[in-house]
Amino acid sequence: MSAFEKIKAHSQKLSHFQHLASICGWDQAAVMPSGGSQARSEAMAELYVHMHNLQTQPQLADWFSEAEQETLNTQDSATLRELKRNWQQANVLPEELVQAKSLAGSKCEHAWRTQRGQNDWQGFEKNWAEVVKLSQEEAQIRSEATGLSAYDAMLDIYEPGTTTASLDQLFNDVKSWLPEMIDEAIEKQSADKFIEPQGKFSSETQKALGLDVMKLLQFDFEHGRLDESVHPFCGGVPTDVRITTRYDEQEFVQSLMGIVHETGHARYEQGLPKSLAGLPSGQARSMGIHESQSLFFEMQIGRSNAFIAHLARLAGTHFHGHDTELFSQANFQKLYTRVKKDFIRVDADELTYPAHVILRYEIERDLINGQIKHTDIPELWDQKMQSYLGLSTKDNYKNGCMQDIHWTDGAFGYFPSYTLGAMYAAQFMASMKQTVDVDSAIESGDLTPIFTWLSDNIWSKGSLLTTDELVKQATGETLNAQHFKDHLRSRYL
Amino acid sequence: MSAFEKIKAHSQKLSHFQHLASICGWDQAAVMPSGGSQARSEAMAELYVHMHNLQTQPQLADWFSEAEQETLNTQDSATLRELKRNWQQANVLPEELVQAKSLAGSKCEHAWRTQRGQNDWQGFEKNWAEVVKLSQEEAQIRSEATGLSAYDAMLDIYEPGTTTASLDQLFNDVKSWLPEMIDEAIEKQSADKFIEPQGKFSSETQKALGLDVMKLLQFDFEHGRLDESVHPFCGGVPTDVRITTRYDEQEFVQSLMGIVHETGHARYEQGLPKSLAGLPSGQARSMGIHESQSLFFEMQIGRSNAFIAHLARLAGTHFHGHDTELFSQANFQKLYTRVKKDFIRVDADELTYPAHVILRYEIERDLINGQIKHTDIPELWDQKMQSYLGLSTKDNYKNGCMQDIHWTDGAFGYFPSYTLGAMYAAQFMASMKQTVDVDSAIESGDLTPIFTWLSDNIWSKGSLLTTDELVKQATGETLNAQHFKDHLRSRYL
Repeated sequence: MSAFEKIKAHSQKLSHFQHLASICGWDQAAVMPSGGSQARSEAMAELYVHMHNLQTQPQLADWFSEAEQETLNTQDSATLRELKRNWQQANVLPEELVQAKSLAGSKCEHAWRTQRGQNDWQGFEKNWAEVVKLSQEEAQIRSEATGLSAYDAMLDIYEPGTTTASLDQLFNDVKSWLPEMIDEAIEKQSADKFIEPQGKFSSETQKALGLDVMKLLQFDFEHGRLDESVHPFCGGVPTDVRITTRYDEQEFVQSLMGIVHETGHARYEQGLPKSLAGLPSGQARSMGIHESQSLFFEMQIGRSNAFIAHLARLAGTHFHGHDTELFSQANFQKLYTRVKKDFIRVDADELTYPAHVILRYEIERDLINGQIKHTDIPELWDQKMQSYLGLSTKDNYKNGCMQDIHWTDGAFGYFPSYTLGAMYAAQFMASMKQTVDVDSAIESGDLTPIFTWLSDNIWSKGSLLTTDELVKQATGETLNAQHFKDHLRSRYL
Repeated sequence: MSAFEKIKAHSQKLSHFQHLASICGWDQAAVMPSGGSQARSEAMAELYVHMHNLQTQPQLADWFSEAEQETLNTQDSATLRELKRNWQQANVLPEELVQAKSLAGSKCEHAWRTQRGQNDWQGFEKNWAEVVKLSQEEAQIRSEATGLSAYDAMLDIYEPGTTTASLDQLFNDVKSWLPEMIDEAIEKQSADKFIEPQGKFSSETQKALGLDVMKLLQFDFEHGRLDESVHPFCGGVPTDVRITTRYDEQEFVQSLMGIVHETGHARYEQGLPKSLAGLPSGQARSMGIHESQSLFFEMQIGRSNAFIAHLARLAGTHFHGHDTELFSQANFQKLYTRVKKDFIRVDADELTYPAHVILRYEIERDLINGQIKHTDIPELWDQKMQSYLGLSTKDNYKNGCMQDIHWTDGAFGYFPSYTLGAMYAAQFMASMKQTVDVDSAIESGDLTPIFTWLSDNIWSKGSLLTTDELVKQATGETLNAQHFKDHLRSRYL
């Protein structure tokens, strides 16, 4: 067995344990009764220790040295590149730092769950100081190992190849036109009349509607399920993708589009190359590309006129005893494209969302690079919210810098993925429209041509290409934010 | 750390992986979509290999030698005894035999799933020959390791301490009175008039009814769930017990009592000693004792007049639009105590069930001891069915010796547990009634005194005592089949 084959077998072994971790993780979030929590956490911790032991086995270093001398075809070379990347990520940090960060992160996140509601910045800041310090150490070590700057080395975990230089350019451009576009859109919508749904919309009926929409989106129910959890997510494994949603019986609008979003994640997973199962080259390319698929479903397909017509029609057939005007296409259109300046990222609409992300990016970049202190953040947050959305978060920590879970356990470098995803999605759609009659496909109810394009250009590629290569092969150019701007302008102005 | 403590830590580590295996096993049976099957099997196989590696780590031999020299208190001694028992069970067979039997068993069971429907004894027998041969080899090796006879060494896996000598005596006694009692009961019931349920009883309503009954039986929903699967079972872990049922919308009688049965298994698991979590001394005593708890719930509580009254009342409040006589206590009583000579063990009533078990016991005992050939079985089956239940299975393999899954993969020695469980349950009830007013407790709807007795005498003991010690401490004597006979006589004659 060649060294490359030994590494592949090792990766496949590891992927079996990852499979079990995914399924048990889904179970924990979707079905486990509360009393099962402690024993489950202990069992999962044991599994993670075992996986970490596998990832850091000393013989791997030799195998990689050997494998890099072997003659490999293009696909195997890409597989080796991704295997090595994963191995380096798993081995670059000293054990003590991993443990210290994990402990500090858990402590901070756990306390944050109550501190946020109490607007307790002082209490949070005390725990968070340690998380920030350890994250800065982590960034430093990653920086030395990769030759990237500190923050770029963190970005590289989630978005390999993306740099501060490229993000600064992209986001500065967005900042130059977004605030004005938001104001114009709000002004344009100000006279709109629409009917908001008012309960009761039973969870069961919402689920039946959601399943119908998933069918329209060709979710493969032989290889996946829809369930419920407090925080919706897409989990499981490519052969068995578990998406979740949360039902609010007062209204169905959010949950329904949430299902469309998670279905996008799911179809990417279901469409990954089966021949590369258990290898990192067979996995999703990056967080940003993953988000590009969920946002392609949610924003590009899901909020198109033609798809909104389907949603309105299906909702109308499922829910009875409500004002029928609620289910008119025009009303749905307004419900799903409402723009509002507000405090909370996760509730933000398509147009204001990038402002929330850019704000976080600028702050975490400077924090990880050591240019600001974590205690500077509330003031910076307030300044930037004022500047981008005209809102003050002074003394309002819970709806300001304490609103997200990401920073509580030190996931710095993740936020840009959301807006990168939105940009990639717009670019994919622009490119797809050159060869596919997207609107007719959606109108007809058979969206196959759209999914064929996504499968051919994105899903089936796994991580065989770098992100830049993937996007260039699919669209003829690397990331170009102009498509995103054009898309927003055409939808909102 | 003492050797005993090292072994305990090792056991707890192993139990974490067993936890994940249980949850993923439940997932496979209850929620996994069919397309997830292959990747899941591979992941589970990897986990089993890892668990096997843990169980057979060479240093354990030294640790056990050392630990046996250490001074341990009573509880720790019992823990060490059970740890050693598990370790020996895991190490006694050569790897090749384990693998060969697993392969032959999977092949035979898989083919059996179609062969049974086709009544294809010839086809089945070809695969099964290998399973029987390897099981005989297994029994031989276990026999040499334990000093027990071949079949007793197999019994010891499921029912430590139980022997052919004791079973022969017990079962010969049962055979001396059971056929006559069955005839008398059938004669007595022959004039009974009753109403059988006829659909539709929706799965949703059956589930709501089942949950109500589980509440009455004080199932702890903080530490467990009810779901659906093709073959009902009790799985999960003590902190998170997963029971399942299967709904037939034509009738609710079977599924409802099935839930009572699984709740008995579940409460045993939920009631195991928490201080011994992750150690074999904290686990259920044996298959027979496990079955004694499910059968205590199903037969001793569940079919008592007082409990039947609850079932009838609850069913009547859940189901509407049916003849109200269906939900009378008298009708429920008849539905739940109907005696019928029939071919299929899993559908058998309380009274004929032991005949099915004794028949299988006598055959598998002689097969494993090499006194008969597997090809003799169809004829022996027919003879014994004629003798015990007056039914012929000549040429009727699918409703004869091909009906059970147990033998297809070589689980010889398991069947006696069912009837041992029924006997223990009757004995526990007889003993409980000396100090607890069981009928009043059931009538009142607060069954706490019953569960307190079970918890004090059975559940909280885990495997600290041997089965004989456990039963003697609980009831003042070791297994005495007279209680079972008295119970059947009082219910059916």
